[in-house]
Amino acid sequence: MSTPKIAVIFYSTYGTNHAVAEEAARAARGAGAEVRLLRVAETAPQAVIDTQDAWKAQAEKVQDLPVVTPDDMAWADGYFFSFPTRFGAAPSQVRAFIDTLGGVWGQGKLINKTITATTSAGNLHGGMEGTLLGFYPTLMHWGAIIVAPGYTDESIGAAGGNPYGFSAKAGEFNEAGKAAVAHQAKRLVDVTARIAAPSIETA
Amino acid sequence: MSTPKIAVIFYSTYGTNHAVAEEAARAARGAGAEVRLLRVAETAPQAVIDTQDAWKAQAEKVQDLPVVTPDDMAWADGYFFSFPTRFGAAPSQVRAFIDTLGGVWGQGKLINKTITATTSAGNLHGGMEGTLLGFYPTLMHWGAIIVAPGYTDESIGAAGGNPYGFSAKAGEFNEAGKAAVAHQAKRLVDVTARIAAPSIETA
Amino acid sequence: MSTPKIAVIFYSTYGTNHAVAEEAARAARGAGAEVRLLRVAETAPQAVIDTQDAWKAQAEKVQDLPVVTPDDMAWADGYFFSFPTRFGAAPSQVRAFIDTLGGVWGQGKLINKTITATTSAGNLHGGMEGTLLGFYPTLMHWGAIIVAPGYTDESIGAAGGNPYGFSAKAGEFNEAGKAAVAHQAKRLVDVTARIAAPSIETA
Amino acid sequence: MSTPKIAVIFYSTYGTNHAVAEEAARAARGAGAEVRLLRVAETAPQAVIDTQDAWKAQAEKVQDLPVVTPDDMAWADGYFFSFPTRFGAAPSQVRAFIDTLGGVWGQGKLINKTITATTSAGNLHGGMEGTLLGFYPTLMHWGAIIVAPGYTDESIGAAGGNPYGFSAKAGEFNEAGKAAVAHQAKRLVDVTARIAAPSIETA
Repeated sequence: MSTPKIAVIFYSTYGTNHAVAEEAARAARGAGAEVRLLRVAETAPQAVIDTQDAWKAQAEKVQDLPVVTPDDMAWADGYFFSFPTRFGAAPSQVRAFIDTLGGVWGQGKLINKTITATTSAGNLHGGMEGTLLGFYPTLMHWGAIIVAPGYTDESIGAAGGNPYGFSAKAGEFNEAGKAAVAHQAKRLVDVTARIAAPSIETA
Repeated sequence: MSTPKIAVIFYSTYGTNHAVAEEAARAARGAGAEVRLLRVAETAPQAVIDTQDAWKAQAEKVQDLPVVTPDDMAWADGYFFSFPTRFGAAPSQVRAFIDTLGGVWGQGKLINKTITATTSAGNLHGGMEGTLLGFYPTLMHWGAIIVAPGYTDESIGAAGGNPYGFSAKAGEFNEAGKAAVAHQAKRLVDVTARIAAPSIETA
Repeated sequence: MSTPKIAVIFYSTYGTNHAVAEEAARAARGAGAEVRLLRVAETAPQAVIDTQDAWKAQAEKVQDLPVVTPDDMAWADGYFFSFPTRFGAAPSQVRAFIDTLGGVWGQGKLINKTITATTSAGNLHGGMEGTLLGFYPTLMHWGAIIVAPGYTDESIGAAGGNPYGFSAKAGEFNEAGKAAVAHQAKRLVDVTARIAAPSIETA
Repeated sequence: MSTPKIAVIFYSTYGTNHAVAEEAARAARGAGAEVRLLRVAETAPQAVIDTQDAWKAQAEKVQDLPVVTPDDMAWADGYFFSFPTRFGAAPSQVRAFIDTLGGVWGQGKLINKTITATTSAGNLHGGMEGTLLGFYPTLMHWGAIIVAPGYTDESIGAAGGNPYGFSAKAGEFNEAGKAAVAHQAKRLVDVTARIAAPSIETA
């Protein structure tokens, strides 16, 4: 079976989703995938970022990480997304990146990719489900294959039981959360390896 | 201002949503509304209900409450719904009732009604947002006006912070929850009184 | 590669979704799947059905087809659903069947199934997207893998371009629609064969 | 009754949603509202816009229109949104503006606003419903009151019958569409006038 290529793509304002992405990347590598850990480009003006020390510190922390590009999307067999909620939807930084993908999409390079996603919010129910449910349809436009975790492992219930993807209370990414993220990433790798494999006849 | 007519409509398997509905009815009456507390007809076979003592007990507890009818939907100016989740969606009992409303809908009797909804789940994130987000679109088909609570009151954050509607962990409807439900019901009454009021010109 | 087992499951009031299901079954068999064509049990009272000649005729037409059971859901590797919209959601007949699956779900027998769905509506935009977008989250609760068509084939755009699943205008299932349904079914078979296949190491 | 204040807010790449917004503004004024016609700031780099003549021409056409600000959101009693779909979701330009509203939201200045929305897509079903269904939840976070059109007027069915809001095929905003948009705008004004009115006791 070929080695599945996974892009772990995150946007993180204060660090929670960065930590989630690192755990996902670690678990995906452990499961045999080739992994790129990629950040979504910041679009907020530096002057705005500078008004918040925690945001500024996180921006500096990730500045040497590669920024995700359309080529990464074409390269990968599967995507693991992690980003906070903004009023029940993905941050505009993520949407800005998505909106640059018309070209590779039009070339058919986003077809049959696997996808799973996670999020975080300040409130227990502050869009943790809605953000993911509103994101997956975009991937359906690409012909992606959605691999939401459901209740396929006990770690999911222990981490809050969000069947659409792990969701963290902002700033609270603990051991139970790590186990749920690791499971979600490993399952993505497993499904991706199967989807991306050459057919047995031609192998 | 005319007295708004509110239908509090619930389906409850083990009692949580019955308790939520009673609290909503109490608060709506306190806010000056004329209220009908109505249950959704059970559609599960009695033989299935009898296999679960808690379900059977709840069914007996509500048997003397009136069952909601299409006429109730035409009568009310606003609806307060309460029901558990079933795999991230409203229970089939609720959908079975909804499916009988083609007649009153076709006669234009469901236009301009206000609506708010609450739910419950066994897991913290087990469809508590998704169930409500999947239900409101149905009401949009009727030309209803959606009055989700957002964060219009501090009680909402204290009860888990679900902006789409209060959501209870099954069996755990506590004082914080009651405050959030009471706020959601009172706000529905306030908005309904304004929507349903005759225009000032004709008053 | 093992033969994928596909359950084509439909509910049809006047025949459109029955025709869609037959086309999906035909295409899935042609793609090498073992197929069960199954209808969702009617839950409306016979007295209601009898008031509409077209509904009654359709009910009689399908009476000898097998009714889908929880065992069928455990048996299949993948599901192809077809049903009309009811105010932007699946019909209560479908939800009633879904609500009986707590048992097989609790036993883990619904994990890793593939799923795709189609719908129909009387209006061009009368819930054709909303019905599918509101249905897939339920399957996510099971740990299903969502195989929406996106724009993976030219037939999809020619049939209206619904990326979440084929959608028919009620009563108008034409050749363009058949091509889109056939593609959606074949793609489900292809993905299912890969997901359900034993790992190459053990093959 | 006080004069309702309506912000008609649009983002338009090639002109369709600009035309929809102008029709909505015209109809809202005709219904007695005070209207601000506002465009969402462009966030794409000028170099990208310059690669497409039609986009560049539209950008020049609107350059003298005021750009919507958080103050406009606080000022208005109701919002009419118009924007195209991007893979089944609002464009990142719109989300970028939304993401700047944390401040006025935190001050409670977005509570009890009415909202309705319209969209456009290149395909008949290419996210026309999904884009609106994914947008309304964000407004729910603010405590907004959702005034989707449903089937409250015959013009809606004649324009495609999207109950969640008018949706245009890109470049095809015809007379039937104008009638549906005018109805949607007038209904927003009517509901807003009722919601925003001082209570009769204090009038």
